Amino acid sequence: MTQRPATIKGEATKARIVSAYAALIVSRGLAATTLDDIRAATGTSKSQLFHYFPGGKEELLMAVARFEADRAMDQMRARVPSLSSWAGWSQWREQLLGEYDRHGRDCPLGILIIEIDRASSGARALVTELTEQLQRMIQTGIENMQADGSVRADLDARRCARSLSAGIHGASALMLTTGSTAYLADVIDTAVEHLRSGIPLSADL
Amino acid sequence: MTQRPATIKGEATKARIVSAYAALIVSRGLAATTLDDIRAATGTSKSQLFHYFPGGKEELLMAVARFEADRAMDQMRARVPSLSSWAGWSQWREQLLGEYDRHGRDCPLGILIIEIDRASSGARALVTELTEQLQRMIQTGIENMQADGSVRADLDARRCARSLSAGIHGASALMLTTGSTAYLADVIDTAVEHLRSGIPLSADL
Repeated sequence: MTQRPATIKGEATKARIVSAYAALIVSRGLAATTLDDIRAATGTSKSQLFHYFPGGKEELLMAVARFEADRAMDQMRARVPSLSSWAGWSQWREQLLGEYDRHGRDCPLGILIIEIDRASSGARALVTELTEQLQRMIQTGIENMQADGSVRADLDARRCARSLSAGIHGASALMLTTGSTAYLADVIDTAVEHLRSGIPLSADL
Repeated sequence: MTQRPATIKGEATKARIVSAYAALIVSRGLAATTLDDIRAATGTSKSQLFHYFPGGKEELLMAVARFEADRAMDQMRARVPSLSSWAGWSQWREQLLGEYDRHGRDCPLGILIIEIDRASSGARALVTELTEQLQRMIQTGIENMQADGSVRADLDARRCARSLSAGIHGASALMLTTGSTAYLADVIDTAVEHLRSGIPLSADL
């Protein structure tokens, strides 16, 4: 497995192509975006495009998916502390629903996860990684709240976090299908209700 | 909107083609199944195949998805009464996990929901309908259990059912991605824990 050392200029060009493609998908849709559009937007030649992405459109799509996933991850990581209080959970809920309402069916990450070849090992690794990171973020929040007594200590934080991650995954897919964010709101509200309802009024009851 | 009246023989041939295609997808995979394989398995000519499915492979895939969805619906409907008791929930959980363990990544409905053009109106209608039927089945079960006092009356049965449907949707997709049914078990167990935990030891507490 030898890999040609990447030059700084080459990496910058690759990054420019990927972010231009991501922007085109949002503005005009995936189906309507051609390789010629990407070349026009980035001022690259056909041979340059295939030099950087020898696998063609499929490889480019994977790179855009990875780019959008990294961005989503960074946003999530910035929010980890917030899931350690109920105020943080409700802020997170509003942010998530707001993003979905803004993007709707044009959510680039959602489109890509659906459009890239899901059977490919790259796509599988990406979905698995995104889900696990989301799960860890939620789990850390629940554990912090168990430590300060806001969530019942006998709840299985990992199981609750995995269930909520799967719910968000499903609700996002249903959002792309139905165009409605109602499932996402129901998933988060039910999880919060579950985490909150276990706290007895008095610890001695 | 005129439609040629379907003959009984024609309908039978169409059904035979669809069920043969579904079986081929399970036995050898979607990618490895050609229209020639379907013709060989059903003894139909190329012109017959296109007579019944003028839209070609995409139309055939939609028909198989509809066929598998109807089968899944029938199985679900047969189970509705069982979701009205905790024993029924645990039986449902075992059945669902057992089916996923048996089919794994070859689950025909799962493959089709991923492979058919998700942006098509037919695919959207199918996913929406499946999710709503699942939701109604769960909601009816919860409402019956609220009526007999097994589930706290102040829980929003519809919201809990929608959340669990989205969770099952997401866990199924993650099963196809990761090959593991662990998410599905976590989703169901967390929902049951939520539904059970709300019941106080004494109604007067």
